[in-house]
Amino acid sequence: MRKVAIIGIGQTPVREHWDYPIRYLGVQALLAAMQDARVDTIGGLFVGNMLSGALSEQEHLGALIADYAGFSGIEAVKVEAACASGAAAMRMALMAVASGRMEVAAAIGVEKLTEYSGKFSTAALATAADADYEASIGLSFAAINALMMRRYMHEYKVNKEDFAIFPIIAHANAVHNPNAMFHHTINREDYARAKMIADPINLMDSSPIADGAAAVIIVPMDKIKKYAGKAVRVAACELATDTVGLDSREDALLLKGVQKSASKALKIAGIEAKQIQLMELHDAFSIMSVLSLENSGFCQPGRALFAANDGKYSIDGEMPVCTFGGLKGRGHPVGASGLYQIVEAVQQVRGDAPAPIQVEDVEWAMAQNIGGSGATVITTILNRINE
Amino acid sequence: MRKVAIIGIGQTPVREHWDYPIRYLGVQALLAAMQDARVDTIGGLFVGNMLSGALSEQEHLGALIADYAGFSGIEAVKVEAACASGAAAMRMALMAVASGRMEVAAAIGVEKLTEYSGKFSTAALATAADADYEASIGLSFAAINALMMRRYMHEYKVNKEDFAIFPIIAHANAVHNPNAMFHHTINREDYARAKMIADPINLMDSSPIADGAAAVIIVPMDKIKKYAGKAVRVAACELATDTVGLDSREDALLLKGVQKSASKALKIAGIEAKQIQLMELHDAFSIMSVLSLENSGFCQPGRALFAANDGKYSIDGEMPVCTFGGLKGRGHPVGASGLYQIVEAVQQVRGDAPAPIQVEDVEWAMAQNIGGSGATVITTILNRINE
Repeated sequence: MRKVAIIGIGQTPVREHWDYPIRYLGVQALLAAMQDARVDTIGGLFVGNMLSGALSEQEHLGALIADYAGFSGIEAVKVEAACASGAAAMRMALMAVASGRMEVAAAIGVEKLTEYSGKFSTAALATAADADYEASIGLSFAAINALMMRRYMHEYKVNKEDFAIFPIIAHANAVHNPNAMFHHTINREDYARAKMIADPINLMDSSPIADGAAAVIIVPMDKIKKYAGKAVRVAACELATDTVGLDSREDALLLKGVQKSASKALKIAGIEAKQIQLMELHDAFSIMSVLSLENSGFCQPGRALFAANDGKYSIDGEMPVCTFGGLKGRGHPVGASGLYQIVEAVQQVRGDAPAPIQVEDVEWAMAQNIGGSGATVITTILNRINE
Repeated sequence: MRKVAIIGIGQTPVREHWDYPIRYLGVQALLAAMQDARVDTIGGLFVGNMLSGALSEQEHLGALIADYAGFSGIEAVKVEAACASGAAAMRMALMAVASGRMEVAAAIGVEKLTEYSGKFSTAALATAADADYEASIGLSFAAINALMMRRYMHEYKVNKEDFAIFPIIAHANAVHNPNAMFHHTINREDYARAKMIADPINLMDSSPIADGAAAVIIVPMDKIKKYAGKAVRVAACELATDTVGLDSREDALLLKGVQKSASKALKIAGIEAKQIQLMELHDAFSIMSVLSLENSGFCQPGRALFAANDGKYSIDGEMPVCTFGGLKGRGHPVGASGLYQIVEAVQQVRGDAPAPIQVEDVEWAMAQNIGGSGATVITTILNRINE
């Protein structure tokens, strides 16, 4: 199986980009990644996006962004897997290059959510849930995650306040990421008095919707010497699914998609969980951080909050998470988030992160992108290339 | 480059399926294809669909259909490229198998359009056009194709009535396809008195929106002996793009995406256009049939109508088109149409078509799926395997 490497990364700041239509966000990230890779053409473009049809009245984003970037004619498609669309596009680009059908592929994730009323965005996002058994009875994603969080609190006898550590870490790291949406720290008092959204989920447990785009350039591993861009090896990028409806699972806290995706990725990379030095995890809600860590095998079920509060996941801890702010601090432009995570993990492996959030001597980094309440999961493992 | 074969096909009848939600249409086609291939599991699922979010309030179709088919856990994503979504999913499945990431992949196309008012479907379909420069000024696809048809009539001094031959062929063939939406023939008088939709496009120039799903099972060419399903070699499946907006093209009758996709496919298959024995073409509007044939190199610009009226593309002609009815006669379930075309071409190559529409001794067949007014084009060439 032909291996691939990432030789270029690009991103727009995560903001409320009311001044840019979705096509320009995508173009900006793509051209930035191409400039970073120092390539002037690409063989194919895979665009991760969930809601361009609903919120920008624009489907057909593949051909559109290819054209506006100046590459009309190339292969280009849109890939959708709810909040996991970004990393799903990365997976398609990887297969395109690995299949020998092209030598240089770009994967971009792009989303524009904020120009619409919060109510409309929430309804559009609920199309990632089961329309017949969840969304139709009013279950938004905050509500679905509230059910999971409540169950977790019951099962493991933990308090709501114990979850504060995840948004605190996210905001602390986001301060140093110029592309992050938020540049202020928060503390336990801020968390305690945050507005309740869907009990027990409060505003600090919830990542903000946002606009943005991120991109990577992928080439075959055995061709990296041809390109000037700083290469990082993609040791694994594995996609697994689970039921879309939470009601269909045997246990609300058992994320089989996370388990399969993470264990397969680790196996293919040929490493153990403890070798991962940092993880860009999918903290759409703080309960998701907990379940992602536990189901990926980084700690025992019921232990993630204890480990987090002991400092394990802080920037100077044993395995930092959300080093650039995560979905909570950097922001969550839904179909783009998976590629932001990968771009950030590449920066860590290259040693290009801003000093306060650069993890030391990174050989192995993981990014995990989760769609819906765990129905699509892509775990990517990046590896430093030692000359 | 690892080659692939199709070892199973499945489809639902094309109808107004008000009794089935979109997930069940997809599941039916997938399970039918698996039964035909005689495989009981798949490694990945690529779902071509354009409008599930807008019209069924359901994104995340990959994981959802995988689950409802009984394969929760496998890799699954949705692929969108407007009306070319179906064949785009086929292209992704091909790359997944060719990359060595999986051995058995399923590509399905599924769409459900008719349960909504025609006005709403037309608006949703217009998201395949350029939202800023076409849809926002009221250009629906009937209107965009009307501009192209009017230009063609002006350029080549042909009459509107000359176009009647394409819907006549489509309906004549659809009569023999049990899965087709329409089972009645039409004649020149029917065409002449058809209701005008967007001058010069009348109702008979326009394919009907419809509901349906079609699927194929793909395995590596070098493994076909392991499987019991009747194999057909995929000699090529090539995707090319063009500008989304018609206004950005140098010539409204020059479809660069068609030219690139068809010429690349022929080159990779190692054959010339004249070796193609039948073509499932994308007759969303009759002008598209004309432009598809001319830009693919089957005849000189301005000659397709003359050739058609001379009988070249009729079922007993030199190169029959739309042998199962095409988009006009079988129906156009948008994101599924590309896979219906491929499934029908497979039936022709296998010799499994109903007698009146079976083309004799088919060695080479082509299917061409077109998104928007030509912005995404996938040309697939199928080849008989001679034992």
